[in-house]
Amino acid sequence: MSTRIAVMGYGNLGRGVEIAVKEAPDMELVAVFTRRDPASVKIMTENVPVVKVTEIENWKDKIDVLIICGGSATDLPEMTPKYAKMFNVIDSFDTHARIPEHFANVDASAKEAGKIAVISCGWDPGMFSLARVYSNAILPDGKDYTFWGKGVSQGHSDAIRRIDGVKNAKQYTIPVESALEAVRSGSQPTLTTRQKHTRECFVVLEEGADAARVEKEIKEMPNYFSDYDTTVHFISEEELLTNHAGMAHGGFVFRSGKTGVNKENSHIIEYSLKLDSNPEFTTSVLVAYARAAFRMNKEGQSGCKTVLDVPPAYLSNLSGEELRAHLL
Amino acid sequence: MSTRIAVMGYGNLGRGVEIAVKEAPDMELVAVFTRRDPASVKIMTENVPVVKVTEIENWKDKIDVLIICGGSATDLPEMTPKYAKMFNVIDSFDTHARIPEHFANVDASAKEAGKIAVISCGWDPGMFSLARVYSNAILPDGKDYTFWGKGVSQGHSDAIRRIDGVKNAKQYTIPVESALEAVRSGSQPTLTTRQKHTRECFVVLEEGADAARVEKEIKEMPNYFSDYDTTVHFISEEELLTNHAGMAHGGFVFRSGKTGVNKENSHIIEYSLKLDSNPEFTTSVLVAYARAAFRMNKEGQSGCKTVLDVPPAYLSNLSGEELRAHLL
Repeated sequence: MSTRIAVMGYGNLGRGVEIAVKEAPDMELVAVFTRRDPASVKIMTENVPVVKVTEIENWKDKIDVLIICGGSATDLPEMTPKYAKMFNVIDSFDTHARIPEHFANVDASAKEAGKIAVISCGWDPGMFSLARVYSNAILPDGKDYTFWGKGVSQGHSDAIRRIDGVKNAKQYTIPVESALEAVRSGSQPTLTTRQKHTRECFVVLEEGADAARVEKEIKEMPNYFSDYDTTVHFISEEELLTNHAGMAHGGFVFRSGKTGVNKENSHIIEYSLKLDSNPEFTTSVLVAYARAAFRMNKEGQSGCKTVLDVPPAYLSNLSGEELRAHLL
Repeated sequence: MSTRIAVMGYGNLGRGVEIAVKEAPDMELVAVFTRRDPASVKIMTENVPVVKVTEIENWKDKIDVLIICGGSATDLPEMTPKYAKMFNVIDSFDTHARIPEHFANVDASAKEAGKIAVISCGWDPGMFSLARVYSNAILPDGKDYTFWGKGVSQGHSDAIRRIDGVKNAKQYTIPVESALEAVRSGSQPTLTTRQKHTRECFVVLEEGADAARVEKEIKEMPNYFSDYDTTVHFISEEELLTNHAGMAHGGFVFRSGKTGVNKENSHIIEYSLKLDSNPEFTTSVLVAYARAAFRMNKEGQSGCKTVLDVPPAYLSNLSGEELRAHLL
């Protein structure tokens, strides 16, 4: 029998889950829950109901894993502990500083209900966390480097949009090639914020706004831009929508470590992602962890987990024998 | 109390384990076992005994994990099942085709004894296997690529040394840069053996040997060289020992996958290693899995495992709380 997946929320992530479940021979989508009027939500899969979130309790025995697609600021801190009382759940909670608190809340709910909850899935946190933990365990004497991009930072784009006179904006975070090369050399450089990433902004002005003033305000904005080399381009709204609508992203995780009696040997572990669609890659990760969550729960496990707690083989629909014969 | 580690065999790998255990604050080396005369084996750590392998049964309650450093051809198929009856064990068995058989033998021994055995640790199999399994689970529609090098292939170096007139030789396997770039482009190229790697040979001739004949024999050797673009350099033994004594290695694992309603989005996952010392990196992996093996056994688990079965957090000496707060 297929693993029965449901989705909470139908935005970019919800759609990504729908696409990823279609690719999985061992899974089927059984419901999409929404806070909106279900009649207004059109999904791609035929014969799958869109259900008002208030009816979710009626689905307790009809869903194996609920994938919660909400924002980390306000949605997930409330939703994940709530739904972990009814279902095995997966989320993509990505506010690093608040993970311990979120973990504790979700763990209490999931343990009480005998369910598995995997939080903070995706690529950072998620695949990048795995790269960091594996490489730190293997090379205890070393230095970590994480670079992001090239990709759009939603937070930085929003910050520009809040400036008076700005109609619309997109901000790209770009890793500095010479910094990547310095890390790859094994020299374990100490890199400042400015040396690691540059920021490139595409800005649409309101009619009559002062471009020079807007550019100055962007470049001097503390935390967001003042510590970076920032480039500002003023473009038309049409150009923004045509050329900057993409959701590509990616990044690099390095561990540069030393071994040897006299630490004479350098080792570089590099993990990188180049993603055309940030939400579709993220949801591909969520769906793989949904498979793992259901397996762990069938084995009798419960409580909150992260990617660090899940044996890799549980993510695959291949058996242990098949994995050992073909991918080990 | 520290985890008590013992090593079976004291060559490059055994020495690497000794160095890696020194770096681990939660481990101590308690014994080195050897088939040689113990008096002839000088190790680096003070106050650790070198013990004749025939005495190993007396150490049953004094060792938490035995790391078996032997060859995959004949040592490990015999040693790992044998010692899994007495200890939690780790090996680096790397004959991919024979892993299922080795797994079955070791599993029977370890289950009978209530011990954990982690086989095929290292980087390929090992870290590269993890990269393949994670990325296949996340991107089910895609293509895998593995490249090795630049590094010395022991098997190819040995094959050259067997040619009449050759005194000594080293062979480097080198990934082709344009093939790496083609994979990184997301075009999912079909690459022939010749397009993926080149082979570079440094050969010392016996006095009076015919260089042209040796070069021809190398380049036309089936399986080993005939499918590759091979370069042969004749050098002095002194130059070989001075410039080609290193044990650097590495490689690249890629998954190039597609997502989207119409498969319109490409994603590239790249994992790469650049290692100054192949044996020291390999043993750093073995020691991290020794930590995991002991934990799993303390929890009551037994049987044969591979890197695919071990939750990543078990490799680290940090607690779950610390990992979630700092590395997730």
